[in-house]
Amino acid sequence: MAQRHHDDLTGRAPAGASAAVRNATTGNTYDALAQGTDSAVARGDRGRSDVVTGGPSDGRGERPPLTSPPLTSQAPTGPAPTGPALTGPALADPAAPTAPALAGAGARATTTGDLLAAYLRSQATEFLRALRLHRETGAGAAPVDDSPDAARALRRSARRISGSLHTFRPLLDPDWAEQIRPELAWLSGTLALEHSCEARLERLLLALHRLSGAPALPEQPARARTGTTPPGAAETSGTGHPGPADTLPAAAPGRTAPTAATAATPATAPERGTLTVGAAKAGALLDRQLTLARTRAHSTALQALGSSRFHAVADKIALLASEVPLTPAAPATPLAPLAGAAEERLTAAIAGLPLLTAGHPYNAEALIHGLSPDPAPHPQDTPWHQVRLLLRLHRYALEVLNGGEFPQSPAGEALDRHRDASEAAAAAAQAARTPRIAPATAYALGVLHADQRHEVEAARYAFQQSWQTRMLTPSS
Amino acid sequence: MAQRHHDDLTGRAPAGASAAVRNATTGNTYDALAQGTDSAVARGDRGRSDVVTGGPSDGRGERPPLTSPPLTSQAPTGPAPTGPALTGPALADPAAPTAPALAGAGARATTTGDLLAAYLRSQATEFLRALRLHRETGAGAAPVDDSPDAARALRRSARRISGSLHTFRPLLDPDWAEQIRPELAWLSGTLALEHSCEARLERLLLALHRLSGAPALPEQPARARTGTTPPGAAETSGTGHPGPADTLPAAAPGRTAPTAATAATPATAPERGTLTVGAAKAGALLDRQLTLARTRAHSTALQALGSSRFHAVADKIALLASEVPLTPAAPATPLAPLAGAAEERLTAAIAGLPLLTAGHPYNAEALIHGLSPDPAPHPQDTPWHQVRLLLRLHRYALEVLNGGEFPQSPAGEALDRHRDASEAAAAAAQAARTPRIAPATAYALGVLHADQRHEVEAARYAFQQSWQTRMLTPSS
Repeated sequence: MAQRHHDDLTGRAPAGASAAVRNATTGNTYDALAQGTDSAVARGDRGRSDVVTGGPSDGRGERPPLTSPPLTSQAPTGPAPTGPALTGPALADPAAPTAPALAGAGARATTTGDLLAAYLRSQATEFLRALRLHRETGAGAAPVDDSPDAARALRRSARRISGSLHTFRPLLDPDWAEQIRPELAWLSGTLALEHSCEARLERLLLALHRLSGAPALPEQPARARTGTTPPGAAETSGTGHPGPADTLPAAAPGRTAPTAATAATPATAPERGTLTVGAAKAGALLDRQLTLARTRAHSTALQALGSSRFHAVADKIALLASEVPLTPAAPATPLAPLAGAAEERLTAAIAGLPLLTAGHPYNAEALIHGLSPDPAPHPQDTPWHQVRLLLRLHRYALEVLNGGEFPQSPAGEALDRHRDASEAAAAAAQAARTPRIAPATAYALGVLHADQRHEVEAARYAFQQSWQTRMLTPSS
Repeated sequence: MAQRHHDDLTGRAPAGASAAVRNATTGNTYDALAQGTDSAVARGDRGRSDVVTGGPSDGRGERPPLTSPPLTSQAPTGPAPTGPALTGPALADPAAPTAPALAGAGARATTTGDLLAAYLRSQATEFLRALRLHRETGAGAAPVDDSPDAARALRRSARRISGSLHTFRPLLDPDWAEQIRPELAWLSGTLALEHSCEARLERLLLALHRLSGAPALPEQPARARTGTTPPGAAETSGTGHPGPADTLPAAAPGRTAPTAATAATPATAPERGTLTVGAAKAGALLDRQLTLARTRAHSTALQALGSSRFHAVADKIALLASEVPLTPAAPATPLAPLAGAAEERLTAAIAGLPLLTAGHPYNAEALIHGLSPDPAPHPQDTPWHQVRLLLRLHRYALEVLNGGEFPQSPAGEALDRHRDASEAAAAAAQAARTPRIAPATAYALGVLHADQRHEVEAARYAFQQSWQTRMLTPSS
């Protein structure tokens, strides 16, 4: 029974699985699922091949268009001016045509709770598919590490389910929603940590190379990420061990700037060489600290995925794939007002941003307090992070209404970059507070911190630009 | 005789002084001038009051309109479309209407070597006036320091004379020009050093305060500039002496950002307090180093102004105020082709700038090599510095042609800012290489360096914007 549950949900869900699973949710279903993987391998890989043909590289597959066909076919029945806005490409920038899209969606009787249920079911199926991929690729020798795509797909679905529960809260069984939302937040937060440590390290090492005049990232970070750097070798404070100092310029043979050549020859420019030691040491220090953090995050994620808490979440998601606990009135309740409220929260939050300042290039705003770098996020970044989350919720709401997935908008990408740069700047500042580092290391970290804070400012400018563009288009 | 020479040149020059001085140039005329100041004071202040009524604060006075009246009255006789371009206000941005202005100037017979001679005579008079002001205000207890305006006016005239000699070289006696130009460059360079050290320190301390979240510059720099900081107190490395740490936030009661309040309370945020120590220490270190450099520059300037080399220059300028050594053909040679050549050199140099990159905000170009901060200027800055000099030469050429002084254009201001930020960034990098500084100090200097390099980038952006505006105006 548990065996069938697993196969149905991950292989052929959701069409035929609903009835079979409806009553299988008590007990530790997830343990059965985990064992089921091995049995499935022994039994042959019918189930797996479903996943593989779906899309082996990203673990998500080409989802069957669960709900979008009925919607797409109905789009022309909407009001004439908003009709084109409902197609996928026009919504590539979700911020642009939302108001007409929502108005058009509200006019159609089908954008009700049924649509929400279909969306949640499909996302739950995605979740279970990712879980299966993770178990298949990650349960062997090298665990979660080798299935980053699976972990990403898990997070992806968890975020979408959680976001939809938030936006369309009144349509769902409140007890159930209140139980599962914090669990989904915990799960996606836990799974995100490892990736964000890795991305942060890569961003910071890239910046260090850029700041050293090497345009492309050479072999160094790959070596660094394998963790072969001896932990003690990096901070031989002051004596200027030539080893790490030479690796940085020597590893960048393809540099284009003519002036970089002088920096690469320590014999002719000993001063430049000395300060390149600072960059190398800063890189090694960040490598050490962020690799440690990543390792911890990895263990935490592994523990989480093996915990009974996770099994309970997976069970709930397995149920969701077949039956969404809507309120009795929900199937007939229109979604548009709730999606509109999400959009209003977004626009209100954006209206609160200092967009006038952000639209002024080189306003030097982001580096205020650059010399009081609390490891906690900068207070001035918080409203931007908030808008990033609201923009995401808004995108997910549009996905529910339109039955398809939307790519990230330029505005959303700018806010992602904003978040990444903000956190990288904080990591550089944090590393600078390591006791007993050499002044050259601290100097390099200071330059790096300021550089990332300027990326923060640049991201705000980019967001303001794309938002202004949206305001100026006649469609909005 | 020497007495009359001095009075004539500084008080009533240049109209009636020419004949009297023509043969007074052998021997140490300048020593006589210097003694003449004391005699003038003893004799009553007729000569001085001339200067004072002319303009006591800037030492330049309201020059009698030596050559501009004939030119202004002739302006309407030029070609109709270029006529308005020749007026002063239209030329506030010298880059904008130069081509028509030069064409118009070329069409007029009076814009010949005579005009150059008049300009050089007037600038020489300015020089001697500034010299007299300097002697009067600076020969007492506090020397050059109390007459910064006089030193500035001296440099101002020296630059203009030197620049005009360069642009209109073929019209001048080559032996004389070759002798005096390097001397003028030496003089203005020597006199500029002290001011630039002071301005650099002020810029860096302002930036440190901005980076610490204090919007306005509090008492700190005034105290710092008096040099009362004990040289040893700044670097008590690591122990976190609360004294300098507290002065920074405590001295900024008028801060506006709400988040700054948390940084200002060391009790609740000890980490922020710790890093404010870094900013305070960096400020004290820069104060020490730049004050030392300024003191040295001051001594050098004093020595220079008392040297026989300077007396020789002053004698030559005194001669110039009455008689300009033009070539025999010069009085009838038109100036426009030479001024046009200066403009061509300027536009060619601007065409060589990476303006496309500079027009892209946040291009992160200026901080490339941010981690190899040679104390020498960044190589990538050199073409911009070159354009700054060419723009200045071009402005002086326009002054010669139009017989009036032009204010700095926005493009020129941007390049001044570019130069200042570039040198300030180099000073921060240089300070970071001081042996045995604390990591927190080095970190703050790294942030400061990166901040100033971003000011460099912002200045390039501003230059590109004003240059683009010029290109888009129909008048050009």
